[in-house]
Amino acid sequence: MEDLKIIKIGGNVIDDHRQLDSFLEKFYLLQGPKLLVHGGGKKASEVSNQLGVIPKKIEGRRITDHQTLDIVTMVYAGLINKTIVAKLQQIGCNALGLSGADGNVIQGSKRPVKSIDYGFAGDIESNGVNRELLKVLLDEDVCPVLCAITHDKKGQLLNTNADTIATTVAMAMAQDYNSQLIYCFEKQGVLTDPKDDDSWLEELNYENFQTFLKQNVITEGMIPKLTNAFEALKAGVDNVQIKSAENIIQNSGTQIILK
Amino acid sequence: MEDLKIIKIGGNVIDDHRQLDSFLEKFYLLQGPKLLVHGGGKKASEVSNQLGVIPKKIEGRRITDHQTLDIVTMVYAGLINKTIVAKLQQIGCNALGLSGADGNVIQGSKRPVKSIDYGFAGDIESNGVNRELLKVLLDEDVCPVLCAITHDKKGQLLNTNADTIATTVAMAMAQDYNSQLIYCFEKQGVLTDPKDDDSWLEELNYENFQTFLKQNVITEGMIPKLTNAFEALKAGVDNVQIKSAENIIQNSGTQIILK
Repeated sequence: MEDLKIIKIGGNVIDDHRQLDSFLEKFYLLQGPKLLVHGGGKKASEVSNQLGVIPKKIEGRRITDHQTLDIVTMVYAGLINKTIVAKLQQIGCNALGLSGADGNVIQGSKRPVKSIDYGFAGDIESNGVNRELLKVLLDEDVCPVLCAITHDKKGQLLNTNADTIATTVAMAMAQDYNSQLIYCFEKQGVLTDPKDDDSWLEELNYENFQTFLKQNVITEGMIPKLTNAFEALKAGVDNVQIKSAENIIQNSGTQIILK
Repeated sequence: MEDLKIIKIGGNVIDDHRQLDSFLEKFYLLQGPKLLVHGGGKKASEVSNQLGVIPKKIEGRRITDHQTLDIVTMVYAGLINKTIVAKLQQIGCNALGLSGADGNVIQGSKRPVKSIDYGFAGDIESNGVNRELLKVLLDEDVCPVLCAITHDKKGQLLNTNADTIATTVAMAMAQDYNSQLIYCFEKQGVLTDPKDDDSWLEELNYENFQTFLKQNVITEGMIPKLTNAFEALKAGVDNVQIKSAENIIQNSGTQIILK
């Protein structure tokens, strides 16, 4: 099977034009079929504040009400997605931006209301990924650029976590490709000391992850990212790395392994 | 050659949710390969006003400065495009939203500065249309939904007239299909008396158009629309109609013919 690289970039890269340009130039150099997933960045909050829509949070987690959904759809699927696509086109990468609604490429469902109503937040599963269409595009040397918006195929757009999109797409595509999942972020890899940027691990297995969790060595945003990473490996993704966007073409960063 | 329908809808349909839903249901019923092009609507002005960006006009024509470009990219390529795509997916039409940057589907160029600097306004030609990619999508039973944003392949997004996009795409696709171009708007067809909605023409040829122009019977926004329409016919588009979005499946409206 052919390799397919699924690369996820987050807000920190997107917010800085120079960082984004530098990342995209390196991304372009990656050989073979590839797919980019991008998160939101500060722009959505910026537009939200300018429009007088105050971000709603419950227990620290963002709630996507109607107005917020409109804003993230504008910013993620519109401004950020098309800016990235135009930049990639400029340097010779045949990028094509997609929300999950486009070609029904990722069908999700509105998160059920339990103790918290997250509003128009989307949950997705790998059987909701339109592998056939992605394969048609990849076979045409098109590089899909996915934003963090999906839909429920009942007419509702849904705000969906970009890490989860990258993970789920990598899991689905593992049926057709050697699926390589790379989460890019601002550090060199998974840190054992959040205050020390040099404390990054070359490798992390599931057992060590569990130990680190108990010792509170791994905290906050890294927990769902790593949970996603191990889920991906368990579901057949061939290779998972967490690394700096700057080192996308280097053999550097944290290699996530099951055992 | 197979028929391909290129349908353009404008702001009036987009601004009214009920009208839009009703149009999309009828659009879905159109048989065979089809492609939707949509304009902007009031939402861009609304967001612009909310963000405190005052629309700039010179001699009545809109100027796309940096901020305005960001806003139209958010609204056209983001909110409106994805809303339409999600609604079409709901009713069973496999829609896929595209700006001109996506898959380099429409490459344009920034309008040269002559007496007026229109800012980031795009001019396009039929050789800038990526017919191959559109054909790949249409062959997959995908319905491309194009918004009024193109790019110059030098990293610059461009605000581009939706009528011009529909016309140019119809002209390009006429090489591979029996290209059918339909401009939808709020009237039943081309009117000979702007005050009388019943004064619509069943047919309009080029000679009559010229006469009507001299008599000031046809004015304002209808002039560039009809100029586009006749250009399309001259460039090999097989069928051009101007009709109401409500009558998209009826054999009604103004048939534009050369002779």
